[in-house]
Amino acid sequence: MNVDGVAYRSIWVNADGWSIDIIDQTRLPHVFAINNLTTLAQACAAIRDMQVRGAPLIGAMAAYGFYLGMREDPSTAGMQRAYQRLYETRPTAINLRWALERLNSALREIEPNERTARAFAEAEKIVALDIEINRAIGTHGLELIREIAASKVPGEAVNILTHCNAGWLATVDWGTATAPIYLAHDAGIAVHVWVDETRPRNQGASLTAWELGHHGVPHSLIVDNLGGHLMQHGMVDLCLVGSDRTTRNGDVCNKIGTYLKALAAKDNKVPFYVCLPSTTIDWNCSDGIREIPIEQRDGREVSEISGKLASGKVTTVSIAPDATAVANYAFDVTPARLVSGLITERGIFGASEKSLAQAFAKQNSRQPE
Amino acid sequence: MNVDGVAYRSIWVNADGWSIDIIDQTRLPHVFAINNLTTLAQACAAIRDMQVRGAPLIGAMAAYGFYLGMREDPSTAGMQRAYQRLYETRPTAINLRWALERLNSALREIEPNERTARAFAEAEKIVALDIEINRAIGTHGLELIREIAASKVPGEAVNILTHCNAGWLATVDWGTATAPIYLAHDAGIAVHVWVDETRPRNQGASLTAWELGHHGVPHSLIVDNLGGHLMQHGMVDLCLVGSDRTTRNGDVCNKIGTYLKALAAKDNKVPFYVCLPSTTIDWNCSDGIREIPIEQRDGREVSEISGKLASGKVTTVSIAPDATAVANYAFDVTPARLVSGLITERGIFGASEKSLAQAFAKQNSRQPE
Repeated sequence: MNVDGVAYRSIWVNADGWSIDIIDQTRLPHVFAINNLTTLAQACAAIRDMQVRGAPLIGAMAAYGFYLGMREDPSTAGMQRAYQRLYETRPTAINLRWALERLNSALREIEPNERTARAFAEAEKIVALDIEINRAIGTHGLELIREIAASKVPGEAVNILTHCNAGWLATVDWGTATAPIYLAHDAGIAVHVWVDETRPRNQGASLTAWELGHHGVPHSLIVDNLGGHLMQHGMVDLCLVGSDRTTRNGDVCNKIGTYLKALAAKDNKVPFYVCLPSTTIDWNCSDGIREIPIEQRDGREVSEISGKLASGKVTTVSIAPDATAVANYAFDVTPARLVSGLITERGIFGASEKSLAQAFAKQNSRQPE
Repeated sequence: MNVDGVAYRSIWVNADGWSIDIIDQTRLPHVFAINNLTTLAQACAAIRDMQVRGAPLIGAMAAYGFYLGMREDPSTAGMQRAYQRLYETRPTAINLRWALERLNSALREIEPNERTARAFAEAEKIVALDIEINRAIGTHGLELIREIAASKVPGEAVNILTHCNAGWLATVDWGTATAPIYLAHDAGIAVHVWVDETRPRNQGASLTAWELGHHGVPHSLIVDNLGGHLMQHGMVDLCLVGSDRTTRNGDVCNKIGTYLKALAAKDNKVPFYVCLPSTTIDWNCSDGIREIPIEQRDGREVSEISGKLASGKVTTVSIAPDATAVANYAFDVTPARLVSGLITERGIFGASEKSLAQAFAKQNSRQPE
């Protein structure tokens, strides 16, 4: 999407034709910095230090990182080294492993001197696929926004609430939850986005607000506490969120706090849709609340906060009494009964086992992998 | 309550027997500072600059401020000046006006040379009444905690979630929502409190966590997004919150985000009780969502945050892109249907017009004042 009128992706091949550029997301929203990566070690650091984050983008970075590794050492030992080093950066990231497996399979049987070119081509395919999937999600979601816009006085904005950053910065382009929003905005439909700041890591305040602002999409930053009040007063037409993992019956695991917004949406009859690539549906899981283990993270994510001083310097401040105990769970599960529908690259489906099984009959039968 | 073993109130008469001491709440949680007030001007500044906050404490400060004003000038002109200056500090604070009216009535008909002593006596009565009301709320709420504790393995903590600061720092002592918690803890019942940080002003992280910690009550600071997940997993036994204003049918206006917690409590069958002095029931209001205007505050409360640097210095940092639009509503309304009961100084009552009318038949009939 655009950054002040110039089209960007979150990762791309440098003008030199071979090295990789990324937006350093650890420096947003205060500094827009591009890092140029030329080595496997730099690619690993970019993932480990969260310069790139978001499952699809991590997958793309891993693929390009593998390719940079092949430039350094295309031997079978070099492949093993690249796989291992990249895998260790964030071992729980499913897309990371998926991308590495894909490159490993493609390169295993070919000659070392062909591996660099093939790795590059595979990485480009992964990137193209991500863009295609997100655009398709956007196209389906756009129809929902169009319908709401049609019910309004012409020009009156469709108010959309989103949580966390399921935006283009989490993917290669478009984002998942933001794809329908960007398509609507670009199509001239008036939209306004309520951006949950998304404590504790503030991805809404630092990334979603930055994205929307630089693309020119009207939005307002709000605290996570506000959504219920806005929905009570008819100020939200639609909720669009992403998903880290969706069970086969439609339970949605997403950033902590998503469940509270879904409750408010249900209580106020606001449609609550979840945008996801169908690859994130976990066909082996049928009860999100009981079966999905929720990661606990460092309490300092809650008790400390990073921001910009008046001097422009970015620093960290402590916001709680010293040594306060903190509980910090990263995700929650929104039960399927609160979800109006799942917007995937294949269309919009009901959040139920029956609906998903019908929609993905083939893919499902391929599952035990 | 205690601060590291020493009993404190939020406001008290200095050992000199005449001047007034307060805890400077703008410096919490990082610095525990006591300010000594000797003049009307200092009392006004303490309210205006929010060194004291919370409706009951503002009322007490106003009363003592009026008394300090009488020490300076007990003439009728002096009374008018004290009233006006104090009133202007926070004109929308109902308790402020109530305290000023009460002192005005008491002093109007007596000789100037009797006014200082009388003002002091009235202020002491207001303070004593606040403590008595909160202690009574605590006594009723304690029974709920006792019942839950009785259903647990002995020693297993009763988990209580609270939002914002309805603690002793918002009153003279005990607090409203915290009164049952302190009484339970002091009675040897194991309690553990989930403290919502309460964005945007972080009263949970900065005040409630500080209070509980210094009194020795086990607690964990959490982001406002977390409560739903905790309730889904049986980790909350009881929600206790305060109320700024309660309608005659039991709708509860309280800090933004309260409604989302009430929805989660309902969805997970967790009892959700509201603690309030019956004086905050608005008998003229019967539909909180439609009738109560919700204050919008400065967006910088959301986009900027105050905290302590590693050096110990307290400063403000910006957490959003520059010039991001912000919406910042301070309160929301929790509909009566989500409230398990209202804990008042007179007992626990259902959140319904019928229940409240019966309980407060006399007080109600006195209302049009």
